[in-house]
Amino acid sequence: MLRIENWQILSASRREELLVRPPQHHDAKKRVTEIIHSVQQEGDVALLRWTRELDGIDLARIFHTDLLRKPGSQMDAALDSHFDLSSRDTYSPASKCSPALPHQPPRPPRHDQYEISGLASLQVSPKEIAAATISPQAMEAVMTAVKNITHFHQETLPENKHISTAPGVLLERIYRPISRVGFYVPGGNKTPLVSSLLMQALPAKVAGCPMRVMCTPPNAEGVIDPVLLVVARLCDIKQVYKIGGAQAIAAMAYGTKSIPKVDKIFGPGNAYVTEAKVQVSSDPEGAAIDMPAGPSEVMILADASANPLFVAADLLAQAEHGADSQVFLLCEDPLFAEAVHQALVDQYQHLTRQEFIKKSLQHSAILICQDRSVMIEIVNRYGPEHLMIQCVDAASWVDHITAAGTIFLGSWAAETLGDYVTGSNHILPTYGFARQRSGLSTGDFMKSMCVQSISEEGLRTLGKSACTLAMLEGLDAHANAISQRLQVMEKI
Amino acid sequence: MLRIENWQILSASRREELLVRPPQHHDAKKRVTEIIHSVQQEGDVALLRWTRELDGIDLARIFHTDLLRKPGSQMDAALDSHFDLSSRDTYSPASKCSPALPHQPPRPPRHDQYEISGLASLQVSPKEIAAATISPQAMEAVMTAVKNITHFHQETLPENKHISTAPGVLLERIYRPISRVGFYVPGGNKTPLVSSLLMQALPAKVAGCPMRVMCTPPNAEGVIDPVLLVVARLCDIKQVYKIGGAQAIAAMAYGTKSIPKVDKIFGPGNAYVTEAKVQVSSDPEGAAIDMPAGPSEVMILADASANPLFVAADLLAQAEHGADSQVFLLCEDPLFAEAVHQALVDQYQHLTRQEFIKKSLQHSAILICQDRSVMIEIVNRYGPEHLMIQCVDAASWVDHITAAGTIFLGSWAAETLGDYVTGSNHILPTYGFARQRSGLSTGDFMKSMCVQSISEEGLRTLGKSACTLAMLEGLDAHANAISQRLQVMEKI
Repeated sequence: MLRIENWQILSASRREELLVRPPQHHDAKKRVTEIIHSVQQEGDVALLRWTRELDGIDLARIFHTDLLRKPGSQMDAALDSHFDLSSRDTYSPASKCSPALPHQPPRPPRHDQYEISGLASLQVSPKEIAAATISPQAMEAVMTAVKNITHFHQETLPENKHISTAPGVLLERIYRPISRVGFYVPGGNKTPLVSSLLMQALPAKVAGCPMRVMCTPPNAEGVIDPVLLVVARLCDIKQVYKIGGAQAIAAMAYGTKSIPKVDKIFGPGNAYVTEAKVQVSSDPEGAAIDMPAGPSEVMILADASANPLFVAADLLAQAEHGADSQVFLLCEDPLFAEAVHQALVDQYQHLTRQEFIKKSLQHSAILICQDRSVMIEIVNRYGPEHLMIQCVDAASWVDHITAAGTIFLGSWAAETLGDYVTGSNHILPTYGFARQRSGLSTGDFMKSMCVQSISEEGLRTLGKSACTLAMLEGLDAHANAISQRLQVMEKI
Repeated sequence: MLRIENWQILSASRREELLVRPPQHHDAKKRVTEIIHSVQQEGDVALLRWTRELDGIDLARIFHTDLLRKPGSQMDAALDSHFDLSSRDTYSPASKCSPALPHQPPRPPRHDQYEISGLASLQVSPKEIAAATISPQAMEAVMTAVKNITHFHQETLPENKHISTAPGVLLERIYRPISRVGFYVPGGNKTPLVSSLLMQALPAKVAGCPMRVMCTPPNAEGVIDPVLLVVARLCDIKQVYKIGGAQAIAAMAYGTKSIPKVDKIFGPGNAYVTEAKVQVSSDPEGAAIDMPAGPSEVMILADASANPLFVAADLLAQAEHGADSQVFLLCEDPLFAEAVHQALVDQYQHLTRQEFIKKSLQHSAILICQDRSVMIEIVNRYGPEHLMIQCVDAASWVDHITAAGTIFLGSWAAETLGDYVTGSNHILPTYGFARQRSGLSTGDFMKSMCVQSISEEGLRTLGKSACTLAMLEGLDAHANAISQRLQVMEKI
């Protein structure tokens, strides 16, 4: 079911081949460009059309019909809640001095039937969010996650710094939350990806981002799973929109009448969503993104102290994510490898997502390695999203790891715990991006500014050097800004 | 020379128009894609061809001729230095356990004349770097910059954190330098952009990035300005390549025989370089980038305490960067605005880069504002790369600023000081990106990993919640990874 290979006897090209990531679909590019352009040009109309065409859900019909049946009630409620969110069109960040700019675009005319039905169809009403309920058991689990994720992200908030680099020169690095952030929660699984939402919304709340918007595809009835609405409520998200796919990313990047433009878009998604994120982030008028998301992956290092049952379960847990997930076990003992394989085959029988697991295992492997140094080489070369070290001296390996999204230490450290409840963020660099990127953190929801206070003394200390460097670069207007000041200073 | 507008009486659309950034050239896209593909396919041959075609410099001819005149000397030296850099092709990061992987690609055959001349032409030899000298005055200025930039970036190094979120759960966020980083130093000005190199190379050195590569276009004689080589030496850069433009970005993103592949590319550049950075960063096989660079810009807030001479000089300093630079002064007093304008016209006469300044001022303005709150609105809406506050109570404005790359406080705080020597980083978000992004910092040369140590107690504390959440998401293999462990635990 999962190939076992002896690394030492493999050719260089076979090694290369084994560690290659499953190729990503690049045919999404053209279609995604088309979707983005249509949303830029037609706004909500395009959103409703793509949802109908791609997701098979006719939100306009569902909700328009509804409105006709109960005239004046649901529609008005939706409109009111919509217009109450005064920050929507002309967001001005939390500042005592920032009333809305006077030239805000006019509100959509109420008589525009299509716009109105688009709006009522796309946004989840505050009432719906307030009314959503889940079982006490689910609530307890969610609250555990909320508590730990909040705790970890609070503790890892970036801190302001004050540094004096020269007499009369004080530099302060200060942080500000990003004003408008958008969360994408995929619906691929047909089940609510509660944890995807928590991992975006809680750091944003901790960072203090004043405007937080969420998009997720609706189900066939045009509604969002109540557990997602409960989590949205717990995370203080007021704006939830029923839209998925590349069209959701385009809507948040450029804004429509119903959906506000944001500054940065977060969250995982399929090939279309990822492609849309890449495209809008390369347009200065679009939005920044957290990182390009690839398929999930795990690499497990195990020695004789590891339990084959746990290792097998961890490989299967990763493999169930999708057909293009990739899992590796690195160990020295072929008998251990056999035991893991047997456990994997046994446990597989009782799992529901067998179709994904089977496909994922096709481009996965157990690699028998000669020694620890070979294992570390492979890890650093591959740069796995998740690394699990189930060895007797797990902690001592960490110093040698240069590229991994997150590292689980010890036999009891199931990746599932980190995926949901330890408090760490599970949005991590995949596809080898761990070589250059970090997992999501509170800092990704903020930006820093360097405040430079420079006195007369500071200018006297550094002015000459700055002038010399400016002239080396041929920038005499830069030098002039110093010499104008030095001249005045001499006269005082 | 610089238009003066009364903000209060302007229409909404005129306001919008005034704050619009100069449009960027988008016709670079196709040409850049062509350049990148050719470098991927032909390597050094393409690099030499583009340098000949686009920069008008025939490196192969210059150096090949040279080699023929002095056979065996310069060429061999270049080759030896080249092969001594054993980290080049198969970089393995600083780890006691990482010998080079056994399957490294074969070295280029020595008999391939073109490859050899390509290599000798493209790389600056260690001897040349060691031999470069500059004037004592220039050296003193450079050393001041090195000292302060190093100091600031050391103090702002990200710090590891240890957090226990639950009994038996310890999360450690640790940082690792990015293994291979590339610096781009543009040559557009025909003068050495010393500070561009310092602002990339010093944070990389402070972060501990083991492999640091630099590309910059050569002059007509095929050589690099000695001041850049001196700075490269001071920053401990061993690999300097004579290549500019989109082809340099492609070379660092994908690697050629002569130029090593890197994980992340830094540095400013023209529209081609920026487009190339965007393109390689959206390819998983390419490289990450620092940020897309746009034209430089400044917004100055000034009251009666400001000196019109200084304000004019600061506007001119920004405007000389390029035709698409943008500068704004925001003030309340029309007479002050007139005084600044007069000073600007006077100082302009003595500057050399008048052509750029004239064009830049065409899409710039002095805006007369009714009061402080209007100014702050404009600043936060525009999100300037540089903000200067030359007001009597400068520091008290900072709390209200939500989007700016860096902020200079007080009349003596010339932006020129921050551009070169205060120690802060001058690679900053332009084009409104200050809403989402930070200026360059040591953290951009590192990535974090979250190390999760979870004991039996940790699993007991969190296992049930993790299981519940996994089942909510329909992921029973995730739940299985917990229950396998809980079953074993009960038996112990």
